[in-house]
Amino acid sequence: MEIKEYLNSKKQRVEEALERYMPKPTEPFGQHIEAMRYSLFAGGKRIRPILCLAAAKTISEDPAVATDLMPICCALECIHTYSLIHDDLPAMDDDDLRRGKPTNHILFGEAGAILAGDGLLTLAFELICSADDGSSLSSAQRLKIAHLVAKAAGSFGMVGGQALDIAHEKQDYPFEMLQTIHRSKTGALITASVHCGAVAASANSQQLEALLEYGRQIGLAFQIVDDLLNVTATTAQLGKQAGNDEVQGKATYPAFCGIEETSRRARLAVSGAKEAIADFDSKAEPLRLLADYVYERSH
Amino acid sequence: MEIKEYLNSKKQRVEEALERYMPKPTEPFGQHIEAMRYSLFAGGKRIRPILCLAAAKTISEDPAVATDLMPICCALECIHTYSLIHDDLPAMDDDDLRRGKPTNHILFGEAGAILAGDGLLTLAFELICSADDGSSLSSAQRLKIAHLVAKAAGSFGMVGGQALDIAHEKQDYPFEMLQTIHRSKTGALITASVHCGAVAASANSQQLEALLEYGRQIGLAFQIVDDLLNVTATTAQLGKQAGNDEVQGKATYPAFCGIEETSRRARLAVSGAKEAIADFDSKAEPLRLLADYVYERSH
Repeated sequence: MEIKEYLNSKKQRVEEALERYMPKPTEPFGQHIEAMRYSLFAGGKRIRPILCLAAAKTISEDPAVATDLMPICCALECIHTYSLIHDDLPAMDDDDLRRGKPTNHILFGEAGAILAGDGLLTLAFELICSADDGSSLSSAQRLKIAHLVAKAAGSFGMVGGQALDIAHEKQDYPFEMLQTIHRSKTGALITASVHCGAVAASANSQQLEALLEYGRQIGLAFQIVDDLLNVTATTAQLGKQAGNDEVQGKATYPAFCGIEETSRRARLAVSGAKEAIADFDSKAEPLRLLADYVYERSH
Repeated sequence: MEIKEYLNSKKQRVEEALERYMPKPTEPFGQHIEAMRYSLFAGGKRIRPILCLAAAKTISEDPAVATDLMPICCALECIHTYSLIHDDLPAMDDDDLRRGKPTNHILFGEAGAILAGDGLLTLAFELICSADDGSSLSSAQRLKIAHLVAKAAGSFGMVGGQALDIAHEKQDYPFEMLQTIHRSKTGALITASVHCGAVAASANSQQLEALLEYGRQIGLAFQIVDDLLNVTATTAQLGKQAGNDEVQGKATYPAFCGIEETSRRARLAVSGAKEAIADFDSKAEPLRLLADYVYERSH
């Protein structure tokens, strides 16, 4: 299996689902819906939905599971997109460029961007909790998924991590704090994406533990590579301002450990992720390729 | 039954539950949790949770229903509080005073206030979807409640209404648009609060329809009275800047119809609410008193 081909086909599937589940710009709410759609369809690798699908596939090849996961995949992407919109706000990182395009508040104003984020976050839970009588997912499974996503996205996860990140700008802090910020701000939702797939496919407790460890390691690898790219890639390659972590006085892995050691730690996390699922059969191949892919992005 | 006594006793019960369900400020997320708690515990009449409890009580006197509703009551209050924090932001209504105290962004900064709101919104769904094995609410009931709350709070409800409100500032628009803004920005979550109680108490379809109509009318009355108070009350009475609707160029009922006609429309909505539940027995007495109370606030 070619990872690029796999990613492209899954990305297309996720984007078709987003098109299906996202509201159309209808009056009188047209402008607000446009603001949400703008950032949701501004590109993006759809890594969280793809991790969710790949994790479920590892346990169950029933195509109904993948189909019924689509609203949840879209919810994960809504939450990720809302977090980018709010992070880019002038009161936060004050970024003008994201994925090579003007950020949401540049086009829709600050109020419009705050509300686009609020709308996407709320829509995520509407999608997860929507009654779908034909779904193979039970109410208990959906409820569990909504709960774990809320926890990962909330004050002890993504939102809390962003609060820590902002509070520590231009300050000296220990390496452990950087790890806490990464784990909560980025890691929690990536781990939750894998967790959603495992719950939807009714993983047993041993499978679940292995997948969660995979999710933790892949989340870590992802963030370390992001830090690395912010230092080594150009603005054109990133689609956002390169080197802005340093400008904003943010600590990063390379600032603490240097580029070599950061690269080594990324490889270590990728190995850890693959090791966690070593006992799984060939159905786990997409997860293994995804782990390699995360590292390959770094060079 | 005295309405003041009823409101006080329910308010106390809701605040005890908030104290139980809200996270404590634990490191490293202490400052962020403090920001959420500040606005949640800055006062407030707790009308949405009380409407939810009163609606459930109308159908079922089983004390377990009221107990199991408490996380949902807290979720409604979290969503209401988050909406106030984001509405008060400099990019939105730019208010310094709320409930007689400095607004969230005055104390915690803009980024802190945006994230406190995001955290409260996310926490609401964590509370509704939390697994509680001892609860009398089924997974299907919880899921339905999470879904209807998300819909009411989202882009075709509260968030969409706020987007319309901001987009129409200092503009001329027809009276129908004012009604749409009110219905989505304020009415939807109030109606949803009643709806949550009805679902939790397993209302039949006839009871549900009556309660929803009550919810729609009470939501309308509530917003009309708010408009009226913004014109007629003092800043000390309101706990926020009196007359700021006019300063911000916002259309209001009094601006369209004058104070007399606005007052008449508030009375009409209150009668409509009571009429919707006319067939209910004495268990609906709290809902009737709440309807009268909404009007009494206006003078």
